[in-house]
Amino acid sequence: MATSAPTAVAVTVAVTAAGKNQLFLGSFVDSAKLDELRYLHDAAVAVDAAGTIVAVEQPCDEQKARLTVLPRLGWAADAVEVHVAKPGQFFFPGFIDTHLHASQYPNVGIFGKSTLLDWLNTYTFPLEASLADPSKARQVYSRVIRKTLSHGTTCAAYYATVDVASTNLLADLCVAAGQRALVGRVCMDQLSPAYYRDESPEAALAATRASIAHISAIDPELALVRPVLTPRFAPSCSAPLMRGLGALAAEMPHLPIQTHISENTNEIALVRELFPPASTGALDDSYAAVYDAFGLLTDRTILAHGVHLSEAEADLIAARRAKVSHCPCSNSAITSGAARVRWLLDKHISCGLGTDMSGGYSPSVLEAARLAALVSRHVAMGGDEKAKLSVEEVLFLATRGGADVVGLADVVGAFAVGMHWDAQLVGLGDVNADGEVEGDRDEDNNVDVFGWETWPERVAKWVYNGDDRNTKRVWVKGRLVHERK
Amino acid sequence: MATSAPTAVAVTVAVTAAGKNQLFLGSFVDSAKLDELRYLHDAAVAVDAAGTIVAVEQPCDEQKARLTVLPRLGWAADAVEVHVAKPGQFFFPGFIDTHLHASQYPNVGIFGKSTLLDWLNTYTFPLEASLADPSKARQVYSRVIRKTLSHGTTCAAYYATVDVASTNLLADLCVAAGQRALVGRVCMDQLSPAYYRDESPEAALAATRASIAHISAIDPELALVRPVLTPRFAPSCSAPLMRGLGALAAEMPHLPIQTHISENTNEIALVRELFPPASTGALDDSYAAVYDAFGLLTDRTILAHGVHLSEAEADLIAARRAKVSHCPCSNSAITSGAARVRWLLDKHISCGLGTDMSGGYSPSVLEAARLAALVSRHVAMGGDEKAKLSVEEVLFLATRGGADVVGLADVVGAFAVGMHWDAQLVGLGDVNADGEVEGDRDEDNNVDVFGWETWPERVAKWVYNGDDRNTKRVWVKGRLVHERK
Repeated sequence: MATSAPTAVAVTVAVTAAGKNQLFLGSFVDSAKLDELRYLHDAAVAVDAAGTIVAVEQPCDEQKARLTVLPRLGWAADAVEVHVAKPGQFFFPGFIDTHLHASQYPNVGIFGKSTLLDWLNTYTFPLEASLADPSKARQVYSRVIRKTLSHGTTCAAYYATVDVASTNLLADLCVAAGQRALVGRVCMDQLSPAYYRDESPEAALAATRASIAHISAIDPELALVRPVLTPRFAPSCSAPLMRGLGALAAEMPHLPIQTHISENTNEIALVRELFPPASTGALDDSYAAVYDAFGLLTDRTILAHGVHLSEAEADLIAARRAKVSHCPCSNSAITSGAARVRWLLDKHISCGLGTDMSGGYSPSVLEAARLAALVSRHVAMGGDEKAKLSVEEVLFLATRGGADVVGLADVVGAFAVGMHWDAQLVGLGDVNADGEVEGDRDEDNNVDVFGWETWPERVAKWVYNGDDRNTKRVWVKGRLVHERK
Repeated sequence: MATSAPTAVAVTVAVTAAGKNQLFLGSFVDSAKLDELRYLHDAAVAVDAAGTIVAVEQPCDEQKARLTVLPRLGWAADAVEVHVAKPGQFFFPGFIDTHLHASQYPNVGIFGKSTLLDWLNTYTFPLEASLADPSKARQVYSRVIRKTLSHGTTCAAYYATVDVASTNLLADLCVAAGQRALVGRVCMDQLSPAYYRDESPEAALAATRASIAHISAIDPELALVRPVLTPRFAPSCSAPLMRGLGALAAEMPHLPIQTHISENTNEIALVRELFPPASTGALDDSYAAVYDAFGLLTDRTILAHGVHLSEAEADLIAARRAKVSHCPCSNSAITSGAARVRWLLDKHISCGLGTDMSGGYSPSVLEAARLAALVSRHVAMGGDEKAKLSVEEVLFLATRGGADVVGLADVVGAFAVGMHWDAQLVGLGDVNADGEVEGDRDEDNNVDVFGWETWPERVAKWVYNGDDRNTKRVWVKGRLVHERK
């Protein structure tokens, strides 16, 4: 296999993680809770060679760290790599993209006036099918990993395609690039063109097992990359396939599950038609009940969209402790609807953000956070004033919320001892008295800071006008995986 | 006056425009009509020393241009500056920002969960008032001009503040930077804090005349910068002030007028309360009828927002041939509502796009175009499928639509003989077979082109993921006013 050589090297790199002790100094911002950011200024975070945070100290400068923190950790002073954020810069947890189709990346922005079902046939299935060509798959997957890393996405829940080899290649490339990922081979054995679907439920399950085996082999501890059971969505999976996937989910309780739910009203009608409760033994004729009937609505399940869920469905999702990936860019772009995130959160349903490329047009979780805030205001326009999501709330969804959605709540999403160092260094642009941006070419950016802003205002400016230019460096599990030149 | 010296120099620069004949070669894209872009590949556009387009030829390369176009124009071969777009790059008309508050630029992204009336008092009036400090005004206005130029905004309809001196400074700085602009001193003599309003209707009118006189002096032919009558919005203007501004509009029929209308439901209720028809002689108790009663609803009037207009108001606006500036970023951000642009267009009301900083969070008209498309889909979610705006339509609004809104339909917005060369050179990023972006550091950008896209797909990618990095060069009236390093 032509692609195995670089993979082998990459695994070594990933397993050794950063390979050195590191000390990060400066300002740190993360979510204390849903509606509150924590600002740690003049602080120090120590990260061990495995990429785990072993100390968070405040106040603490380099001198104090060397005098107190390093000795306590038993670290030799000359065996520590020190990273100091410049004034105004801050470390922020890496973003978690809880739903995106790596295979659709080349189509971002290309959707015309379509909605879900015609969008799939017109734009999506032909592109996904074409990635059975390994050189094209390598080109596209290399790019989507590099691009999302550059936007600060340290963990991505990817859908690949039906094709096993290129799905495995995506996992290989994630390991090589050092991006934490869930990688799912897409299961679909009906209602798509003959050129792009699993031949039978049995073939789909065998292909799924093959991909799980590959990913488990390249990252045996699932330290960086995990396989994820991926029934595309109910309409494209036959009942036998759904049943088989439910059995697989029970057989492999360490695996997450991802699928779509209730994105579009025509889709919902189609599910009702395809899966009458009498045939599945479902609780009722709702979309959520279909997944539940097949054992796929679990506390490991990531449900993308959930735009048009009924009260009863949301209660069922809450009862099963399944998670929701909110994809505002996609829901607006292909006119799916405006998801009621506050309503889901009030039901204690765990929510994160997804770019949902290429239903969503942007590779940026920051853009998804911005749109989540804006779409919540469109929900509020309908009369529910408290639907509005704040800057603090959308950043929670982008980090800690997303971490919980992908099953990594204890591992990433904040700066706490025992969690991994999945982080980004954020820098904004300072405007001087002449209206010029200070600093060199590296300061080219879209966020102008005049100097009189509070820290929460700086963060709001980042959320509303920031982009990948503000993400100066990105680390996953302590390893530097992206740096702006 | 400390600021007059650079102004004098700047006027000279502006009046001489480019100062040389220029030939542009490559691909040109502009709006043929509302829903159709024109693609002119392998074309040549000749621009004379005054910045006016004097020839559009296709097909035409440099050799053909030198053999046929230059002799026809009587241009010496060695007195022409030649600009060639690289393959994949294209010239596009400069964007027209039909509504923004230059004075609010430092607050972009800072609005919390506020809506219009509390947003004004909490965030906006204090900032605007602070720009009476000339050094702060210079810092802010320098930056907003530089920033909007970098995003391809060749013409901006600016609100400044109540303060005459700093409003005049904004006009000076526009002339110096070469940005085409409407510059309005804000008229407001009621319902704002005592620290920030005109002392009386008479004082407001005198201050307005003073600013008009200054701008007319620095640009006597109003070639680049024009004064614009600017009643902030009905609630902040007394009836005598509105009446005085109506008289001024009649006295100076060459001046445009700009104001806000029907942005927020509380604002509309306030207008109804403040201006009962019996007191104004208005046709009815609508917001539009108030402006009409005072002679301010004309074919030179730019109405920002128009989110909640009634059928009768829209008909009145159409009858008066007044224009609408659609500000989707603002309307979503401060939860004003979703303007029905298709409905306005169907009534033959001329519409353009406004960033409306800082109700809007972004300095980019491209972002406004993107949000116009998305917000139109939120209108469509309400059931009106044809409300959706296409990529072609939002780009029309951003250029030719905007040009008509600011009274420059014959001057800018497209590439036609007799129009001015207000243009931007757009470049996207090419991804090679390894998923790497081709080219040097300058190619750092957020739009990845894989090479198999059609031209309309490339343009869609630009609209949905593009930013100022894609705007390589910007010209106004033939003069190069921005270039990315």
